[in-house]
Amino acid sequence: MLDAVKVVLSPRGAARVLARHPWVWQSDVKSLPETPGIHPVYGPRGLLGWALTNPRSLIQVRVFHFGPTDDPLAALWANLERALAFRREAYEAEPEGGFRLVHAEGDLLPGLVVDGYARHLVVQAHAAAWEPLLGELTLRLEAALKPAGILAKHDAPLREREGLERYLRTLAGRVPEAVEVREGAVRYRVRLQGGQKTGAFLDQRDNRLRLEAYLEGRGYARALDVFAYQGLFALHMARHVAEVEAVDSSAAALEAARENAALNGLENLRFTEANAFDLLRERQRAGERYDVVVLDPPAFAARKADRERALAAYKEVNLRALKLLAPGGLLVTASCSHHVSEADFYAMLASAAADAHRIVRVREQRGQGWDHPVLLTVPETRYLKLALMEVLE
Amino acid sequence: MLDAVKVVLSPRGAARVLARHPWVWQSDVKSLPETPGIHPVYGPRGLLGWALTNPRSLIQVRVFHFGPTDDPLAALWANLERALAFRREAYEAEPEGGFRLVHAEGDLLPGLVVDGYARHLVVQAHAAAWEPLLGELTLRLEAALKPAGILAKHDAPLREREGLERYLRTLAGRVPEAVEVREGAVRYRVRLQGGQKTGAFLDQRDNRLRLEAYLEGRGYARALDVFAYQGLFALHMARHVAEVEAVDSSAAALEAARENAALNGLENLRFTEANAFDLLRERQRAGERYDVVVLDPPAFAARKADRERALAAYKEVNLRALKLLAPGGLLVTASCSHHVSEADFYAMLASAAADAHRIVRVREQRGQGWDHPVLLTVPETRYLKLALMEVLE
Repeated sequence: MLDAVKVVLSPRGAARVLARHPWVWQSDVKSLPETPGIHPVYGPRGLLGWALTNPRSLIQVRVFHFGPTDDPLAALWANLERALAFRREAYEAEPEGGFRLVHAEGDLLPGLVVDGYARHLVVQAHAAAWEPLLGELTLRLEAALKPAGILAKHDAPLREREGLERYLRTLAGRVPEAVEVREGAVRYRVRLQGGQKTGAFLDQRDNRLRLEAYLEGRGYARALDVFAYQGLFALHMARHVAEVEAVDSSAAALEAARENAALNGLENLRFTEANAFDLLRERQRAGERYDVVVLDPPAFAARKADRERALAAYKEVNLRALKLLAPGGLLVTASCSHHVSEADFYAMLASAAADAHRIVRVREQRGQGWDHPVLLTVPETRYLKLALMEVLE
Repeated sequence: MLDAVKVVLSPRGAARVLARHPWVWQSDVKSLPETPGIHPVYGPRGLLGWALTNPRSLIQVRVFHFGPTDDPLAALWANLERALAFRREAYEAEPEGGFRLVHAEGDLLPGLVVDGYARHLVVQAHAAAWEPLLGELTLRLEAALKPAGILAKHDAPLREREGLERYLRTLAGRVPEAVEVREGAVRYRVRLQGGQKTGAFLDQRDNRLRLEAYLEGRGYARALDVFAYQGLFALHMARHVAEVEAVDSSAAALEAARENAALNGLENLRFTEANAFDLLRERQRAGERYDVVVLDPPAFAARKADRERALAAYKEVNLRALKLLAPGGLLVTASCSHHVSEADFYAMLASAAADAHRIVRVREQRGQGWDHPVLLTVPETRYLKLALMEVLE
């Protein structure tokens, strides 16, 4: 795997790596080993670092270590140990909690994601170079975190593009069909085995907890959670808002949300299967008023080319939400689109508020949870934007 | 003061007000009462709201109420009551604390700033229309906040441009020469009377407290506070870092910082009078290493035209600070320049990290404290940017 064959980059690709960005695209790669693996990366002036490479990947070269090293594997594992050390205190303090333990490029571990749900780890290693390292990865995760079980959730379609097999496999211990996770005072079920996403969206955990803390003692009467998925924002709200409605277009997601409500003994939630755009329009037409609206839509801009259309869609839902809010009400609104920048997002929100003729105080300008680290030189690592805002008038 | 004479705006000025921006410049004002005061604002399609106006001001029209009202003064005072209600709980919980109680446009109270230092209020009302209202303002502040004293700090040169007299006057109670303010576990002296700025920079209060909480238990050995002014960041650091050096170019500021250190019984601080740029360069040349560097410079871009030069200056100090930091060290870096956007600021930081060949994890992307509110439709109200970042390698 550590063959002597090397990667050679164009001057532009080399400049990028020198500036501490880990990704190099095909157009900046002059030559590349045919077999996926761990290889040294060279520019016109010599060695730049070490990377996971795969000629079949969209991003052929993904650097995990900058500069020279005698032992590239040790450098890779050092990145893993740093990532785990960064979460250890929180992970140990909350044995029933949900955490992202490894966040791929944000931890200089390209293509590797490890989530922990009540001490059960879910590994997603979607870069070919990880495949022969899964054994050692498992041993290291066991030693560091003492999990009850480790699952390789390798069933994502994108693995085929990498030339990887798709499978679900228990790497260690025992991994049940589902576990219960505790998030503050709320509990929710996470399906570990089985084809779907886990649905926990751990990147919003801190934001959900923050929203719950914000709502406590305010005596709000009505909240609307649009794009509610399995209802996590709605559950936190239902602890402090008299009446909460969770809206999603997926009946299966709402079924999971219903189970989660029952798990928490919450009876002030109702569930509506509907298209978010249609529902917001209807509620506005009916003259409804809410104290809180949460908008946590899926990424409207999956590709760069979708940016304009996505901004129009974000503006539509935010404009309607602003019109539905009572004075003194709260809008919690997010975008997880990589191709919508923070500046874009706030300009869109300002434009929605201007069109709605409303005065809005931005209480907090937030991002993804701390366990999804942001690297300064890799803007792509900051993808989640969330605004917590009060409508004053 | 509430004369029937009205303001008439151009279509562009009207669109701006309709979109909930309070400021209208001369080029968009078609006609304006000659006397400063409180006047109704009209666009081509009728009444838009009510504003403080002054033909001598750079911003001639500053809207405080959007839409119609039978009683514009009541609307103005309602904005004041809302601003005070927003801070009341914190103000009452910390009788020795420092708070911004009114933040001008951010509270829809154009030109009015009220700070509270250990229950002594400092009023700055730098719009002519406030002058005849100071009596009622004083009564309302007394009723709402029960302060020990209220000072009108009306000695700023900018008052002359507004056609206002310059003076210092005690409006109520007793205002001593200076008071001690408590900020978390730190105490500092604020000069109330006398010509200088108070130097408290309340907009950084939450960031100073956050930094102290972050440092606790980390066992860092050396911190450098560049642009330290009266040493507030340095004081918080000195509680948890073995050795702290506070650097400023002003001997008077450092004298105040020294007094503050003594007040807190802190003996692990030293004070260096130096130009920040020179000092950073020298320390780098000498191969010094720090665990924490704080960069809280004055606004390098006071005018829009200064933006490029300011970004170059920000980059220079940040690049040097990054080079001075040991792996695992912390950079806390701010910009309060209105003309440097958040996107500009982070792009500048990324470029500094790239040039320094360092990998930096952005722990928190912060702004000004919560008592300096941000209005979504008034981007000018979000002016302070602060990044809390770890140097990984």
